[in-house]
Amino acid sequence: MPELRRDPVLGRWIIISKERRKRPSDFTIETHTSLGGFCPLCPGNENTTPPEVLAYRLGGDRGPNKPGWQVRVVPNKYPALVIEGDLGKEGEGLYDRMNGIGAHEVIVESPNHDESLTQMPPEKIFFVFKAFKERIADLEKDPRFRYVMVFKNYGRAAGASLEHSHSQLIALPILPRMIVSELAGSLSYFQYKERCVFCDIIRQEMQQDVRVVCQNEHFITITPFAPRTPFEMWVLPKQHSSTYCKLDDFHLLSLSSQFSETLRRLNACIPNVPYNFVLHTEPLRFGGVEHFHWHFEIVPKLTSIAGFEWGSGFYINPLPPEEAAEYLREAL
Amino acid sequence: MPELRRDPVLGRWIIISKERRKRPSDFTIETHTSLGGFCPLCPGNENTTPPEVLAYRLGGDRGPNKPGWQVRVVPNKYPALVIEGDLGKEGEGLYDRMNGIGAHEVIVESPNHDESLTQMPPEKIFFVFKAFKERIADLEKDPRFRYVMVFKNYGRAAGASLEHSHSQLIALPILPRMIVSELAGSLSYFQYKERCVFCDIIRQEMQQDVRVVCQNEHFITITPFAPRTPFEMWVLPKQHSSTYCKLDDFHLLSLSSQFSETLRRLNACIPNVPYNFVLHTEPLRFGGVEHFHWHFEIVPKLTSIAGFEWGSGFYINPLPPEEAAEYLREAL
Repeated sequence: MPELRRDPVLGRWIIISKERRKRPSDFTIETHTSLGGFCPLCPGNENTTPPEVLAYRLGGDRGPNKPGWQVRVVPNKYPALVIEGDLGKEGEGLYDRMNGIGAHEVIVESPNHDESLTQMPPEKIFFVFKAFKERIADLEKDPRFRYVMVFKNYGRAAGASLEHSHSQLIALPILPRMIVSELAGSLSYFQYKERCVFCDIIRQEMQQDVRVVCQNEHFITITPFAPRTPFEMWVLPKQHSSTYCKLDDFHLLSLSSQFSETLRRLNACIPNVPYNFVLHTEPLRFGGVEHFHWHFEIVPKLTSIAGFEWGSGFYINPLPPEEAAEYLREAL
Repeated sequence: MPELRRDPVLGRWIIISKERRKRPSDFTIETHTSLGGFCPLCPGNENTTPPEVLAYRLGGDRGPNKPGWQVRVVPNKYPALVIEGDLGKEGEGLYDRMNGIGAHEVIVESPNHDESLTQMPPEKIFFVFKAFKERIADLEKDPRFRYVMVFKNYGRAAGASLEHSHSQLIALPILPRMIVSELAGSLSYFQYKERCVFCDIIRQEMQQDVRVVCQNEHFITITPFAPRTPFEMWVLPKQHSSTYCKLDDFHLLSLSSQFSETLRRLNACIPNVPYNFVLHTEPLRFGGVEHFHWHFEIVPKLTSIAGFEWGSGFYINPLPPEEAAEYLREAL
């Protein structure tokens, strides 16, 4: 059983995933599952993954765990957290731990092994984003979970261990530190100004128009004022909303189109750049708040996290976001 | 001039280091200065670095910026922050920025190009640790600075761009987020318990004796209860002290001996493993506090920071610290 442990000074939680345990001699500098060869995510190999929890099949449905799907969601075969069991919260002297209960799922984004999210048309990306929403809504019913973190690792340098285009989600029994900080920061702004800080950011960015990458009727992509890495981007809904899960199909398609353009601009600047993205939405069963605003953060892997970043929580970025935005605007 | 920028939601600061700016086509997946060949840190090449700000010469002193030194501290030739100028704090709508004023120095740990810190005897490491103390004490006199972060990147994967053994320090005009969090967390514990949380950790670790790696009369090395990476270690003084700068030579030598053993144990487990270490001491001119306890954090580079970590602030660690401690204890 994996374990969740809390640092007694920082309150930072970590997952001890013993199932992935290794002996010292097994550690290499970077650990990677080998790429190439057999792909467990390709159509026809459905029996090599745990049974699917969701799939979209467009006509000619041959039933679950058979080919014919457009997007398929399966539990991770090597999960960081496991679904069965109770939380078993307990202390150990001054330390706190609980069982590593959670869900860890893989969203297979395309049946085509070689098709990346960047190459997919918005009409296909739509099903990926719809799957995020449906899985969050389903996991929200489990009272043990407080948050679902949706994320993607693209490229080996960004942590991907499988080539076939996929994203992941992890359902957690505690609120992640980053979400707690965003909620606290945005609440404190709201208490002072009675306005959502993200709405104010969008307003200012549209006025200044130096960090806007692209926009459509409903969504905007910006390089944030204080980006951690070169070409970091945020994709936000223009209209205030604290939860991703209220998006209807019409807005999901608009998001897909905006996200697709964003990725294509990034790829045009730095072809095939490894990146991560994460979805920040309000915690499960929060019911909508005025001070928080859901968004995606896209973080290209172009700089390394070294001692200074570990020790300080500061990031050093060689590229001003105004210049990154200029490159991205001119890229297509 | 570099720039410091604050994220309006999280309060997270970042450094925009325009001097290190690149065009998109110059970004590779990992950016590295080439290793091998000419070494600006080797004796005889003193004129290729900025003039030294500190050096220890043992007999036969030929004057500054000449060979004969044991440890040498020079300003970084490509600094993330610059020493000249005023802070120039200003707003830009809802954003905050200031000039990138600070110091960025390189501590050359040995005159021998091929000698790593792990290989050096404690009597030599002593001068490295003494240099940390003297440089912090000197930079403390500059009222613009609020913190000096000492850190080391060892190995390319951990961010080192030069082979020759060295550590670095960055003096900052603001308190790093990580230090603010440690101060807040430890203060909150102190207010509840009237005891230093780190002192309590040391007490519990010595009693349980499952995460203690090694210890001497004055210092202890543990694998923390909630480590971010396999083989993460903390080195702490057994006696309460909030500042590294009060160490006398006798205790600096004891620390050198403890640190040396710690690194040798790590190296015996995973030969030549890339790692980072950081020194967490109280902010400049704090004058000693009861709730904070200085320490080193050593973070081997064995896992990658991917989407989940970026998005959540959570870490997934495949190796329980109790097992890491066992490997480290048996390593020598």
